[in-house]
Amino acid sequence: MAGSSIKPTPLLKDELDIVIPTIRNLDFLEMWRPFFEQYHLIIVQDGDPSKTIKVPDGFDYELYNRNDINRILGPKASCISFKDSACRCFGYMVSKKKYIYTIDDDCFVAKDPSGKEINALEQHIKNLLSPSTPLFFNTLYDPYREGADFVRGYPFSLREGVPTAVSHGLWLNIPDYDAPTQLVKPLERNTRYVDAVLTIPKGTLFPMCGMNLAFNRELIGPAMYFGLMGDGQPVGRYDDMWAGWCMKVICDHMGWGVKTGLPYIWHSKASNPFVNLKKEYNGIFWQEEIIPFFQSSVLPKECTTVQKCYIELAKQVKEKLGKIDPYFIKLADAMVTWIEAWDELNSSEGKPAKLLNGTA
Amino acid sequence: MAGSSIKPTPLLKDELDIVIPTIRNLDFLEMWRPFFEQYHLIIVQDGDPSKTIKVPDGFDYELYNRNDINRILGPKASCISFKDSACRCFGYMVSKKKYIYTIDDDCFVAKDPSGKEINALEQHIKNLLSPSTPLFFNTLYDPYREGADFVRGYPFSLREGVPTAVSHGLWLNIPDYDAPTQLVKPLERNTRYVDAVLTIPKGTLFPMCGMNLAFNRELIGPAMYFGLMGDGQPVGRYDDMWAGWCMKVICDHMGWGVKTGLPYIWHSKASNPFVNLKKEYNGIFWQEEIIPFFQSSVLPKECTTVQKCYIELAKQVKEKLGKIDPYFIKLADAMVTWIEAWDELNSSEGKPAKLLNGTA
Repeated sequence: MAGSSIKPTPLLKDELDIVIPTIRNLDFLEMWRPFFEQYHLIIVQDGDPSKTIKVPDGFDYELYNRNDINRILGPKASCISFKDSACRCFGYMVSKKKYIYTIDDDCFVAKDPSGKEINALEQHIKNLLSPSTPLFFNTLYDPYREGADFVRGYPFSLREGVPTAVSHGLWLNIPDYDAPTQLVKPLERNTRYVDAVLTIPKGTLFPMCGMNLAFNRELIGPAMYFGLMGDGQPVGRYDDMWAGWCMKVICDHMGWGVKTGLPYIWHSKASNPFVNLKKEYNGIFWQEEIIPFFQSSVLPKECTTVQKCYIELAKQVKEKLGKIDPYFIKLADAMVTWIEAWDELNSSEGKPAKLLNGTA
Repeated sequence: MAGSSIKPTPLLKDELDIVIPTIRNLDFLEMWRPFFEQYHLIIVQDGDPSKTIKVPDGFDYELYNRNDINRILGPKASCISFKDSACRCFGYMVSKKKYIYTIDDDCFVAKDPSGKEINALEQHIKNLLSPSTPLFFNTLYDPYREGADFVRGYPFSLREGVPTAVSHGLWLNIPDYDAPTQLVKPLERNTRYVDAVLTIPKGTLFPMCGMNLAFNRELIGPAMYFGLMGDGQPVGRYDDMWAGWCMKVICDHMGWGVKTGLPYIWHSKASNPFVNLKKEYNGIFWQEEIIPFFQSSVLPKECTTVQKCYIELAKQVKEKLGKIDPYFIKLADAMVTWIEAWDELNSSEGKPAKLLNGTA
């Protein structure tokens, strides 16, 4: 077949959507063309809905702006953030696929130490399709990777692993720092390529970044709510953190795994630390109570689905975090609304007509 | 000072002992000369005490054979294994230093991806002298390394970290596999250099390998007992695992950290998988109960020293694991003997005379 122009079918081509939140033309996709071209994109346009977002030719996509979100969700649209990349979770909700990859529009293709361009999506898919090992740490990292295995002393009964729900990828160049760290270390760049994928152990929380993230939507989708951020809210830049904490507590309860490490993307541009500080300062304060809350949260065994877990978490958020600030009462209500909207759009009879009409 | 032959003083030169268990001449030290020459070595000679172990010229060492161990510990020598590298823990007990590095005599100097020889000891010391972060996972790994930091969403109250008790290093070339994995994958070599150090989260157990291991003896020394293995015992190759499980439970209780990852050594030779299988088969079976035992073990708050923690663990081992096999009753007794011997040799009045006479 030498000289053939037929491209090989990439992994999970028809089972994965790429979700991109944006406020600008998607020129960054040019760089991703070899890796994304055969997949379907869901673009969530943030900000002014009258603006036209240009998407490079040849990509298969649907695009939703705020008017679409309002039309499709009606009053339940209140749970979707505006003027914040948290709006991306609307894309998770309207997807019809088993897997989601979400990426920010300032993330470019990174190179591995040999100079080869990294197919981030392919690595995420490998992470998602191989099991996780949250119950015992393996010192050679992901035991399912080629050239690795479980080391001496690893219980044999745990070597089947558990299903992987989330694959959290990292970033070369601009690290994902908070505003205070950005201010203190304006020149710091991440140049260290760590050739590892590992499972975050059961019972351990981590800061999940939404820049370069993949997950099994069928397993954990309803927990991937990015909260209330941005316009009209007292906090920003905690959307992915919130999702990460909720998701991890639920994965631990359900017996699913979360991986972090490879793949890297190239994060091109540091956001403004002064603007970030304004968005973050409440979160920086609140997280000191939020994290112990999630660390001690226990889900009763009656919570047998992600939806039930999430509704229970919303209840606990209202009870325990509502004391910190009325914002958490509003957030807990939005968590319930999110699940209602999710179930409405993902009922077993398939997508309602108003959603199908809403696609581009 | 160009042309000077004065060597720079290495880190912790007078505060660290290198402990090496062996049955053969220590030619392997030639390769380590640039890195070990200025440190003090404690050599624990296993097997036939009438055999003479040759140590290359220029190294500062003390050597103990079985006769020395019996003489120094008297009846308590029963807690030190014979014909098994578990005997190394005798070296931890007789050391007078704050830090220990222990290495097997089939471990050579590895090279990093740039081809540079890795100073494993220096990296271990860096790991031990910087804090650990067991309470929350940092996705850019060790936040105290140059070029890294805590990422967005990491609670500020946890950024001081906790004292590091243990640094667990890895191995290139021959991976540390159990006998079944060795048998199934005779040709597998570890060629992946993962440029990371990370803290094993609180509440998570891992398989600690004793091949390339450093620790703060002043903090965790009394928990570094390598158990009863080898001659006359029904199990082998679980010495370091046992120490790792006990040590981790105690570190979690005391609020100290355990790191794994860098540095790598070059593990030169695979041990015989058939011999290993004979040593391991009971352990492979037993670990399925041992690990849940350690995962659920809780130390009461009255356990305020490592010694008290260890005696309490010994009690729990007797009660809970004694049912599996009488071996664990013997092991629990040996754990108590070990602490008695440790305290005898490490009393506040300094080392007893019989130990000082016993040094080479």
